[in-house]
Amino acid sequence: MSAPGSFKRVALIGFGLIGGSIARAARLQGLADEIVTTARSEKTRARVRELGVVDRVVESNVEAVRDADLVILCIPVGACGAVAAEIGPHLKPGAIVSDVGSVKGAVVREMAPHIPAGVHFVPAHPVAGTEHSGPDSGFAELFINRWCILTPPEGVAAEATEKLRAFWAGLGAKVEIMTPDHHDLVLAITSHLPHLIAYTIVGTADELAQVTESEVIKFSAGGFRDFTRIAASDPTMWRDVFLTNKEAVLEMLGTFTEDLSKLTRAIRRGDGEALFDHFTRTRAIRRGIVEIGQDSAAPDFGRPHEALKKS
Amino acid sequence: MSAPGSFKRVALIGFGLIGGSIARAARLQGLADEIVTTARSEKTRARVRELGVVDRVVESNVEAVRDADLVILCIPVGACGAVAAEIGPHLKPGAIVSDVGSVKGAVVREMAPHIPAGVHFVPAHPVAGTEHSGPDSGFAELFINRWCILTPPEGVAAEATEKLRAFWAGLGAKVEIMTPDHHDLVLAITSHLPHLIAYTIVGTADELAQVTESEVIKFSAGGFRDFTRIAASDPTMWRDVFLTNKEAVLEMLGTFTEDLSKLTRAIRRGDGEALFDHFTRTRAIRRGIVEIGQDSAAPDFGRPHEALKKS
Repeated sequence: MSAPGSFKRVALIGFGLIGGSIARAARLQGLADEIVTTARSEKTRARVRELGVVDRVVESNVEAVRDADLVILCIPVGACGAVAAEIGPHLKPGAIVSDVGSVKGAVVREMAPHIPAGVHFVPAHPVAGTEHSGPDSGFAELFINRWCILTPPEGVAAEATEKLRAFWAGLGAKVEIMTPDHHDLVLAITSHLPHLIAYTIVGTADELAQVTESEVIKFSAGGFRDFTRIAASDPTMWRDVFLTNKEAVLEMLGTFTEDLSKLTRAIRRGDGEALFDHFTRTRAIRRGIVEIGQDSAAPDFGRPHEALKKS
Repeated sequence: MSAPGSFKRVALIGFGLIGGSIARAARLQGLADEIVTTARSEKTRARVRELGVVDRVVESNVEAVRDADLVILCIPVGACGAVAAEIGPHLKPGAIVSDVGSVKGAVVREMAPHIPAGVHFVPAHPVAGTEHSGPDSGFAELFINRWCILTPPEGVAAEATEKLRAFWAGLGAKVEIMTPDHHDLVLAITSHLPHLIAYTIVGTADELAQVTESEVIKFSAGGFRDFTRIAASDPTMWRDVFLTNKEAVLEMLGTFTEDLSKLTRAIRRGDGEALFDHFTRTRAIRRGIVEIGQDSAAPDFGRPHEALKKS
């Protein structure tokens, strides 16, 4: 129990991609003496027992948080308020309660009223994920070199924030602190709007009359397939994101729509110079992301290529 | 010279990602006794000489096509007409002339008038690429399991189309034949519209006042980074695509904009059911693409993850 960021008992409520990755990484890094977990469905709980990556799987949220020093809600944003209300009276004094939601303003509003005095509420959002979900989808390396954003409300004990920061650092993440409102604006452009656009375009392709769905799938390597990965993300999680970060998303969407109109006009008028200038500017942003290690420099994300067989 | 799809002399005009990949793969598969290439800039020609992946680098397009049995224009769509006019009088009778452009209607209109009788014009489009460009970016495996679409005009000799099909099959591609107009519609949705959307959103992120560019880059792993790869594609190539496939792109854009309005309305009204249904439908399309081998089943495109270090 000496490692910084380690806890006696960690409770994970929910065991999807994020919960499952926290469990695996925390165990590997020795960040918890005991990991207790629960999940809403008996099917998931049974699968987590089989996987053997946590110490105990229990039947209820109340049972999970009993005597836990760190409680993390790893569930869709829309479910956080109800679960906070349920576990609130059973939290251990001095415990830290956190979450992993992609929206922070709504989570703070919904959860905070249910957290009793003497319990430290430090919301968190690890900016990491894949298009997969469910108890088998997690892996210990998910958070390495990814950012985890903490949004502690005013008045939260600095030690609690510091302990949670050390925990996430132990999982491999880099930690940043900001207000819930600023978080929701930043994520609206870096995550929520891209998802909305990907969901839209994949839906558009699905309903065209002149081009068949099998053609869309066959010739997807021309660019479309990149969007389908994002549009394959968990529907429940993303429904909740758009419902709870509505204002910031609609604001970014307004700017996006204006920009799309500008490019559309350039195409309609045959203004090659405007197009070329725009495309040159965006190319530079990719370089910035690769340089700071937030994406692979390998062409095509490093997608595997088979070798040529001699014909 | 017995392998199907092999040629005595292949001339490649242009040596970027596609030209360079054809050269490397054709050499590896023994599809050409001799590969001659040229490029517009002396810098590129010098680099190709250094790379040593072709037999001869020449100074001009006219010199390149002399006595060539297969001539492939590997240059932006907008440059194809002028090059066809330049090389037309110097093409060897019986030769096959092709290209690799992402738009086919405009290429056929621009090139066909300059191809003399007795020379076979078979336009082609390999649906493959990465975000990199230039003489160093090509690699022999680029076309494996990707589709190459041929759009032979009416009246082209069936043997010529068949020879080019065998050549592309030798490079590892699967070959499909369709009309230029249908090609341009299919690619408008599977490639051109996704690129336009990615270029737009990356530009939008770049000009926001409330969120800094460094924040956009830092937290890009939430989805945005996937778009930056596509928006890092070659600006000249993409300017030409939008200028020459204007009608199909504007039509798809119209449908996309309607769909975006529908989802925007669902968000504004808090219609979670409509969002959930849409997101569930799009998830299935990803599965179709992975099942037919047009993308990797690995999470996150198989992006590399470092291992956790014990703290």
